[in-house]
Amino acid sequence: MIPTEINGKPVIPFMGRGKHRPQGKIIGPSIPTCLDFPSDGNKTVSSLKEALMKADLKDGMTISTHHHLRNGDLVSNEIFKIASELGIKNLVWYPSASFPCHEPIINYLENGTIHHIEGSMNGPLGRFTSQGKMKGVGILRSHGGRVQALKDSEVKIDIAVLAAPTCDMFGNATGQHGPSACGVLGYAKADALFAEKVIIVTDNLVDFPCMPMEIEGNYVDYVVVVDKIGIPEKIVSGTTKITKNPERLEIAELTTKFLFESGILKNKCFVQAGAGGISLAIGQYVHNVLKEKGWKIQVGFGGSTKYMVSMLKEGTMEHIMDAQAFDLDAVRSIAENANHHRYPVFNAYNFHSKGNINSMMDLSILGATEVDVNFNGNVVTHSDGYLLHGIGGWQNCLHAKNVIIAIPLVRHGIPVIRDEVTTIVGPGELIDVIVTNQGIAINPKRTDLLRKMKDSDLPIKTIKELKDEAERICGVPEKPKFTDKIVAAVKWVDGTVIDVIRQVDE
Amino acid sequence: MIPTEINGKPVIPFMGRGKHRPQGKIIGPSIPTCLDFPSDGNKTVSSLKEALMKADLKDGMTISTHHHLRNGDLVSNEIFKIASELGIKNLVWYPSASFPCHEPIINYLENGTIHHIEGSMNGPLGRFTSQGKMKGVGILRSHGGRVQALKDSEVKIDIAVLAAPTCDMFGNATGQHGPSACGVLGYAKADALFAEKVIIVTDNLVDFPCMPMEIEGNYVDYVVVVDKIGIPEKIVSGTTKITKNPERLEIAELTTKFLFESGILKNKCFVQAGAGGISLAIGQYVHNVLKEKGWKIQVGFGGSTKYMVSMLKEGTMEHIMDAQAFDLDAVRSIAENANHHRYPVFNAYNFHSKGNINSMMDLSILGATEVDVNFNGNVVTHSDGYLLHGIGGWQNCLHAKNVIIAIPLVRHGIPVIRDEVTTIVGPGELIDVIVTNQGIAINPKRTDLLRKMKDSDLPIKTIKELKDEAERICGVPEKPKFTDKIVAAVKWVDGTVIDVIRQVDE
Repeated sequence: MIPTEINGKPVIPFMGRGKHRPQGKIIGPSIPTCLDFPSDGNKTVSSLKEALMKADLKDGMTISTHHHLRNGDLVSNEIFKIASELGIKNLVWYPSASFPCHEPIINYLENGTIHHIEGSMNGPLGRFTSQGKMKGVGILRSHGGRVQALKDSEVKIDIAVLAAPTCDMFGNATGQHGPSACGVLGYAKADALFAEKVIIVTDNLVDFPCMPMEIEGNYVDYVVVVDKIGIPEKIVSGTTKITKNPERLEIAELTTKFLFESGILKNKCFVQAGAGGISLAIGQYVHNVLKEKGWKIQVGFGGSTKYMVSMLKEGTMEHIMDAQAFDLDAVRSIAENANHHRYPVFNAYNFHSKGNINSMMDLSILGATEVDVNFNGNVVTHSDGYLLHGIGGWQNCLHAKNVIIAIPLVRHGIPVIRDEVTTIVGPGELIDVIVTNQGIAINPKRTDLLRKMKDSDLPIKTIKELKDEAERICGVPEKPKFTDKIVAAVKWVDGTVIDVIRQVDE
Repeated sequence: MIPTEINGKPVIPFMGRGKHRPQGKIIGPSIPTCLDFPSDGNKTVSSLKEALMKADLKDGMTISTHHHLRNGDLVSNEIFKIASELGIKNLVWYPSASFPCHEPIINYLENGTIHHIEGSMNGPLGRFTSQGKMKGVGILRSHGGRVQALKDSEVKIDIAVLAAPTCDMFGNATGQHGPSACGVLGYAKADALFAEKVIIVTDNLVDFPCMPMEIEGNYVDYVVVVDKIGIPEKIVSGTTKITKNPERLEIAELTTKFLFESGILKNKCFVQAGAGGISLAIGQYVHNVLKEKGWKIQVGFGGSTKYMVSMLKEGTMEHIMDAQAFDLDAVRSIAENANHHRYPVFNAYNFHSKGNINSMMDLSILGATEVDVNFNGNVVTHSDGYLLHGIGGWQNCLHAKNVIIAIPLVRHGIPVIRDEVTTIVGPGELIDVIVTNQGIAINPKRTDLLRKMKDSDLPIKTIKELKDEAERICGVPEKPKFTDKIVAAVKWVDGTVIDVIRQVDE
């Protein structure tokens, strides 16, 4: 089912977890020399267009951006507008994530400026892809996989265009301060290290030295000052609110009970928590129990939110390891709290590293668009076959000691538990527990958990029972219809292709 | 005069400043995978010997260490003691600097465990080298050149053994805390990035996460906990005391007057200052004048001292950029002062980078063992021909806008200004002013400075006049006698060989 070549490059099909080993050396960009840089350290140029031209923007290049400005990003679209005006064709866009604000990218996919996207194709971009309208094949990678691809020379960034809320003339940059402060810039670190040319775009140029230098000026070619890089109120994620939906609160409560009863949640444990509505509700419930017990989470890792910040302040969390800030409280906290640490995705998530933080987590709580009876998970396509989400850190977080998927049994009248997921994004062997509003299914591989929960009053069921229950409610769902055309490929954390996505037959 | 091959590897002779351009890509170590690392993140092993054996220590390997523990380092000698006991031969030692405490290394040079040193050969190690006793040819590089050599694949580190005052099980490490606190670990950064295997040796293992993570655990293979990595009172540099010698104080006073009168020292300028006795005295005088004028130094860069810390506190210095901490006040200050920044040598000094801080400095004040009538400088050999010092950051600091060499006219009865330096370490075109206790010589290339100082009351002389003055006092010095055997090579900041050092004919 997996082709041997995608976008004209050979690919390796998924061989099972832990079966693929990388080969060769880490190869960076060309060796630079100070001879080519201004001796006074001043790398500012007058416009993004000038910077792109100096960086020798050409047909077929790979252009990277980061997503710390989230839905308030004013820089990414601008790059391709300029490229389009210059008549550049067949670029590859390598964002660390995309948002609804990137819908204008469709214009540049349509007019040939962009050949394809390697990164998340959310919402409108995903629909466009699923309709078979993108010239090349989209490549979906996890946050860690994006770094792995750079480290393995699978992707070579020609030009990284990195928006920075604060920067100095030399290119030292931080996300901590400035009118478009976004907290951290960790997703941009790999780009700065591996791109041939690095352009920083800022709306807040400060005197040298800009500290903390999350992006180090030594990796930067040009600095561009513009009026505005981001819309602050849209830099905040739309997902960081605790759910008020009673069904979802029920899931959160059930998950919390399971975590404590199973002993997975214990004093001083390491926890990865998402910023979805259910995850946040679980966080709130957990916080209350921890407080009662006088326990604390030693390390809370992930996108940071005001809820995590309040746990830090109230002593139920010792450290926040912050890969991205989801709200303004989190942005402020990074600058203020000594135990709120910037922890780049580079350090946190890449599987081709000397270990990473994912496998150190006692617990990871995640969502999914679908799971199946073999515990496989999907987070990128919906059951109608449309690609609508990126992978984010989801695959990486599957490496925690205990992985819990907390999902409603039925979503918009469609069962979430299937015979087979539409797209395999994570193999079932890594998913330990599925908690729904109708009961909890434990992966049969986790005999330890099954044994521990055997006398529990909680509604422990088999995955088959949960599926049947869902189908009793809304009938057996129809399978989506696809053409033969491959529109996107899903990479596993080791760079192999775990599944492909085909054009929806509309 | 420069051979085409050293230690069996081809070398490029110095071609003049700015004439050599690096080629090719930056090549790192082999791509690692999490499959080879413990999923719980615990990389501790029971001993340095075990770690070295796990890292597959073999004949001919290159072993690197950093010098942040200075003359209190208890780790470096231990590596070679173990290697010697294991019967390993022909290692290359790649320290970022060496100190008198490393005299025992001579045993391992003599018994064949170490083939040669690429790094500073100070004091006893230098004398041993000059006597032609080292099996291979020593390679001297500047601090920046050490990073350049890694970036250019000139040197491949097989195993980096990095002493860390505080570390967690995963290998995140800092120099800021712990019984052997040394302030910063910036010299170890390049080693962590480029070495095939990285071993951290600590005497202060803390709970994950150790912050700030100056060395990132993602680059670390093994963590070894020992009783003691350093002797705190010897971690402090012996050189960080203001001179009391009246002649040297005179030099300091003259330099200070020159700096202000020439306009080189102005409000908000960037200054690199050494930690030698004269430099520190200049710092003190400058501090007083700045205070009077209400001026401040915007950035003070270099090894940090209590004198810089007091300037920070008293408002005559805005930022300290700290590559290494020379005393305990500096060590404390890094942890306490928001404007006292860790600034790794990696970012600061490497010429094969996208610019660096050296050329941004308005002023660099340096010493020298010798200078000559063409303004060439020597910092590694004495006039008797013996190699007794490393280059440190000296070559890198020559790239400042104004380079001042502050030296006595005569040292131990020997003139410091020569017809020709014993070893060329820095080309004369980069040295702007030589200040001695008998007068100031301005490089004829600096017509701007000559013009500015033409009506000055300061004793402005030609370099020839200063040399004649010295020779009037102590006669024309004899030249040292050498055999034909090359014992060490001096690299320029771009990786070319600027000079060689021959065996002293004793």
